[in-house]
Amino acid sequence: MTKTFIQDLVNDMTLDEKLAQLTQLGPHYWGLDDTVDLTGPFKELNIKPQVMESIGSVLNGIGARNVIEQQTRHLQTSRQKIPLLFMADVIHGYRTILPIPLAMGSSFDLEACERFAEIAAKESAAAGIHVTFSPMTDLVRDPRWGRVMETSGEDPYLNARVTKSMVRGYQGKDLKEKGRIAACVKHFAGYGAPEGGREYNTVDMSSGVLREFYLPAYKAAVDAGVAMVMAAFNTIDRIPASGNSELLRGILREEWGFNGVTIADFNSVNELIPHGAAIDGREAAEKSLAAGLDIEMMSTHYLNHGAALVEEGKLDIALIDEAVIRVLELKDALGLFDNPFKDADPLVDEAPKPSAEHLQAARELGASSVVLLKNDNDALPLKRGMKIGLAGPFATSIHVLGGWAGTEKDPAVSLYTGISQKTSAENIFTAMTGELGSMLEGVFDVEDEIEDAYQALKDCDVILAAVGENQQDTGEGGSKSNLRLSANQEKLIWRLKDTGKKVVTIVFSGRPLELKPVLDASDALLQAWFLGTESGNSLADVLFGDYNPSGRLSMSFPYSVGQIPVYYNAYQTGRPYDPMYPNVRYVTRYLDCPNDPLFCFGYGLSYSKFAYNSFNVEAADRVVASIEVENTSDIAGKETVQLYIHDVSASVVRPVKELKGFQQITLAPHEKQVVSFEITREMLMFYGKDDQLVFEPGEYDIMIGRNSGDHCTQRIWIG
Amino acid sequence: MTKTFIQDLVNDMTLDEKLAQLTQLGPHYWGLDDTVDLTGPFKELNIKPQVMESIGSVLNGIGARNVIEQQTRHLQTSRQKIPLLFMADVIHGYRTILPIPLAMGSSFDLEACERFAEIAAKESAAAGIHVTFSPMTDLVRDPRWGRVMETSGEDPYLNARVTKSMVRGYQGKDLKEKGRIAACVKHFAGYGAPEGGREYNTVDMSSGVLREFYLPAYKAAVDAGVAMVMAAFNTIDRIPASGNSELLRGILREEWGFNGVTIADFNSVNELIPHGAAIDGREAAEKSLAAGLDIEMMSTHYLNHGAALVEEGKLDIALIDEAVIRVLELKDALGLFDNPFKDADPLVDEAPKPSAEHLQAARELGASSVVLLKNDNDALPLKRGMKIGLAGPFATSIHVLGGWAGTEKDPAVSLYTGISQKTSAENIFTAMTGELGSMLEGVFDVEDEIEDAYQALKDCDVILAAVGENQQDTGEGGSKSNLRLSANQEKLIWRLKDTGKKVVTIVFSGRPLELKPVLDASDALLQAWFLGTESGNSLADVLFGDYNPSGRLSMSFPYSVGQIPVYYNAYQTGRPYDPMYPNVRYVTRYLDCPNDPLFCFGYGLSYSKFAYNSFNVEAADRVVASIEVENTSDIAGKETVQLYIHDVSASVVRPVKELKGFQQITLAPHEKQVVSFEITREMLMFYGKDDQLVFEPGEYDIMIGRNSGDHCTQRIWIG
Repeated sequence: MTKTFIQDLVNDMTLDEKLAQLTQLGPHYWGLDDTVDLTGPFKELNIKPQVMESIGSVLNGIGARNVIEQQTRHLQTSRQKIPLLFMADVIHGYRTILPIPLAMGSSFDLEACERFAEIAAKESAAAGIHVTFSPMTDLVRDPRWGRVMETSGEDPYLNARVTKSMVRGYQGKDLKEKGRIAACVKHFAGYGAPEGGREYNTVDMSSGVLREFYLPAYKAAVDAGVAMVMAAFNTIDRIPASGNSELLRGILREEWGFNGVTIADFNSVNELIPHGAAIDGREAAEKSLAAGLDIEMMSTHYLNHGAALVEEGKLDIALIDEAVIRVLELKDALGLFDNPFKDADPLVDEAPKPSAEHLQAARELGASSVVLLKNDNDALPLKRGMKIGLAGPFATSIHVLGGWAGTEKDPAVSLYTGISQKTSAENIFTAMTGELGSMLEGVFDVEDEIEDAYQALKDCDVILAAVGENQQDTGEGGSKSNLRLSANQEKLIWRLKDTGKKVVTIVFSGRPLELKPVLDASDALLQAWFLGTESGNSLADVLFGDYNPSGRLSMSFPYSVGQIPVYYNAYQTGRPYDPMYPNVRYVTRYLDCPNDPLFCFGYGLSYSKFAYNSFNVEAADRVVASIEVENTSDIAGKETVQLYIHDVSASVVRPVKELKGFQQITLAPHEKQVVSFEITREMLMFYGKDDQLVFEPGEYDIMIGRNSGDHCTQRIWIG
Repeated sequence: MTKTFIQDLVNDMTLDEKLAQLTQLGPHYWGLDDTVDLTGPFKELNIKPQVMESIGSVLNGIGARNVIEQQTRHLQTSRQKIPLLFMADVIHGYRTILPIPLAMGSSFDLEACERFAEIAAKESAAAGIHVTFSPMTDLVRDPRWGRVMETSGEDPYLNARVTKSMVRGYQGKDLKEKGRIAACVKHFAGYGAPEGGREYNTVDMSSGVLREFYLPAYKAAVDAGVAMVMAAFNTIDRIPASGNSELLRGILREEWGFNGVTIADFNSVNELIPHGAAIDGREAAEKSLAAGLDIEMMSTHYLNHGAALVEEGKLDIALIDEAVIRVLELKDALGLFDNPFKDADPLVDEAPKPSAEHLQAARELGASSVVLLKNDNDALPLKRGMKIGLAGPFATSIHVLGGWAGTEKDPAVSLYTGISQKTSAENIFTAMTGELGSMLEGVFDVEDEIEDAYQALKDCDVILAAVGENQQDTGEGGSKSNLRLSANQEKLIWRLKDTGKKVVTIVFSGRPLELKPVLDASDALLQAWFLGTESGNSLADVLFGDYNPSGRLSMSFPYSVGQIPVYYNAYQTGRPYDPMYPNVRYVTRYLDCPNDPLFCFGYGLSYSKFAYNSFNVEAADRVVASIEVENTSDIAGKETVQLYIHDVSASVVRPVKELKGFQQITLAPHEKQVVSFEITREMLMFYGKDDQLVFEPGEYDIMIGRNSGDHCTQRIWIG
């Protein structure tokens, strides 16, 4: 089905031109970034200058003006006039920075996720970007890993739903549409499971676990028509993903029917060498090309060795041709042959501010992502007119965009600024708001400052402690072995508690932190994540009850780092722990720590109260489970009703529960609503012993409730 | 090759008798343990009383007198007069309690490991035991798991060597020999890798990792002729080991040619049900019998459902017959048909004390297992005549036999008692020696007691802090999320450091603990493990230099629990950390913790000093690596010279290093010795993509040195 003009282009190409088309480099290789020494990289990568005219795509060459200039120059010099493809890391918004993806996952709001991607796409498209390296849908279970901030969480079903929504949000129905860009799902496969949560570490799992937990969200992206798939840095069963034929050809193309482009991660083809999977660049190129990896990113082994590999008969030219065709088809799908600049628009891109519409959306997305973890004694919402104390390193910080936020052109709205929109500045008392350094590090002695904060805030009605981790400690390369708040922050919270006033702890982080040490010192606990440009406004909306919190954790919060990994959908064991007999030794347990996390998957509070009644499972032609949810409070609110299933006995051991559906409903005060889920056979299927998808008749537990740890259960037979 | 009389017995058996022969129960089922209510278990397991006459084996029915009595009664009532097989958990000695297996692994002394098993076999045999559930050779990487105490450590090669020695020590050349018992290697397979180090938790790994790291030591036991293999509690790729045909038939019997008996772990056939791998006892029996599991332990699904399964054609009677034959062959190999009491000897078993020879051996084994981790300022060895301060919960404790030590009939020699054999009691000053409770728990305030200890010991010449973990916190069911010494113990050590005297910290534990918090407070650090009956004498020998410490860690000691898993033979990554560039972010690392452990595999100090020189690798017909080791000190000592290899590039990613040989040499003061290793092709083989053992010509790094972190390296091509 290749279009004739694309086939003609390929037929007309030299082998070197083909290999260049499969190569992606940063803009400085074209002399477009004066901060980089040109000769260095040219020499290092051994690129002949004339090859630059045929390179296929550009990494992180952004900004409408830059893109237009580079594309124009390229089309002037390029023999075949094939437009460049501009790709960039637009992770959570481009100009308007949106909540980090882990926060978006915690919204459990699929429309919000689609809107998130739409906004990012619109602004990126105007900046000349054609492809974003998003969504990252890696399933994660280890909060030590810095990059958990970039994914939607620990659940294959939720990740799949979020990914689908994001792909739709980026791509729309037609990539040619104004404001749409191509999505690139990553990192195929299993990159979210580095051993010990240590960035770039080995990944190892059985093929059953890979298929059951890790693959579904990538597949959801493929099913949603994602244009591109990025290969991961890590190995799967001892083969680096970027040279892994079983993954890239076997599963992705043959099994799932993916027809789009595959791309390496940064330098990942070259990294076959340090991995010890290739002895040199030639072998790296051979393995990656043979595995079906179309585009090499930021290394040039395809360029430098591809021709020799073909000449020596080590590589079939057809493999290269089909890769080139896929790249050209993507350029065509984006309309670049007709309009090589697509939506690049300096007027929009260089506007003094993001659009009011996008800022408003960012504010709403942020509010919907915040998770209320504790709210004793109605500490929240705050009332206007209260004397509010505000302390901690994130009280006035504008460095809360979150990692991977690009340029920080527009600073984030601080918590202080957000609150000051809600209540008169005379009612806000601050102390110890120094952003970084001593408070976050916890190595300096700040006893005196903490004492001063106590004195300054002890007469307030309520005290907000804005604590967390430096945003630079999250994201790629942000692995940590210690997940506690710094000692200074923990001390501050405990000292503030001594005031006898209500203490609201607000946690800024890109991962689940260890919050047990401050739990008892906090009347309320609010997980604020990093919410992007509108951070302070989103939080103020939640704190003052203008937005009734609705976020639900998409990743378990551990008691302590010694409990990791802890996640809700673990496999059943032969000696389960029974809370009725807490002192039995010979069951699966720790002697000194619960099995359950501090806050479980799906958990989150509201200012409303919801009661669950009349749980019923009907199994006739269809199996339908329903429950009545009642808002028993005087406050309207949004509840996320969650469906879990458990296969009681099967040919392979099954998880103790699996999320299979959820519905967000908004209930007026004292309103009731019946929520129903059909249990389909598809929901009950799983990968059996031979990696085949099977349905096995038998007993199932059907669970509906407010989170993975609190639900009604009924066991039924489904045949 | 089945002997005629065995075949005749099987031919003469009813199906119920066959199934009974495949069943193992505790002695209370015969009314032989008055602490257990008889009717309960009988009813619960639904055993017909007449079936008891045909049961094949007894679990933990021990003591010569008991065994003789039960065997006699059994042979009187049994129709076929087939003797019972008595099996027991003899984990580290029977009467003379020997060092825990993790300590034995750390001796790196294969003769010691064989002696260890010989002593245990001799005493067990005299107590009427025919089979011990040892060695446990599960590879371990997570010190949170309590059962790391029962294995020899993290390395497949060392575990294989230790296992081989132990099987030889238990079994000798002929099981009929006096003083020999059958060994049962466990737990097949992968039981040492429960997720999160949480006992009985899910195990998951790729088949490559299973074969590369976890299987070799079990295979070594099979190659050494082990009589029995125990199936593990855990799943492998979502199938419980006790019903796992691929493991028990495919790998164990077909691939490795194992002809001996397989046995369930305690109740593990029944646990297919809570695992969700069998809907009921009938399906559990079907799956386990079909998988080739010969003996069911402490559940009775074979007995209760086996006949129906055969009648319904769900199970071939041949499967049952071959299992019965294997059980009878083991009884025959032990000579039980001729002498059903074997070596059971009340005179020996009930002797007032263990033999002096065994006690002496225990003392030597203990000394050789101790690992000296730090020894600044020549804090050790102690000199007779010094004023020695002794503090901490293990100073005078006799509860240092280690978990799984059986009856504690003879208390262990305490550290205090051991030291008091070396120096006059007037020179020993004790403080804060309360054993358990406040010191170990760390929740009670003991500031005053610590202050008293400081005052009492501040005038000593040296202070020994005997700290650690309660032995009940180790072993089966002893998983912990926190690996630090209790806060009280850490405080005590730091306060003792304030005396300005040398502080020697002696750590009693069944696992690597987090020792970083007390490292700087300790001039010397001695890993004492749990050494069994002679503990205090072994330690005193080391402390006073009567034994120059020679132990080497067989398991990495982490900086902190947040670094787990940390082990030396990790797979190479694509972005290795380079210590020359410690601030590069985008490499595999934590932001707040090193990648290396605090003390690495193979590490251990001596009172001697050893220099390594003249490293040479010759590759002619044979590849031979050699190095000259010189004792540069005035003290004779034992050094463990270690050979590691690394495959630079291969078809699958290889570990950064792998132990492939070691030699223990004893050098007189200033003596030199050249140590050579031949690098064989077998050493370089590994399981490739398709689970086939391959050798791949190419470059290899050959390393010889004192431990996994300190060695010479040379890269050569081996074809």
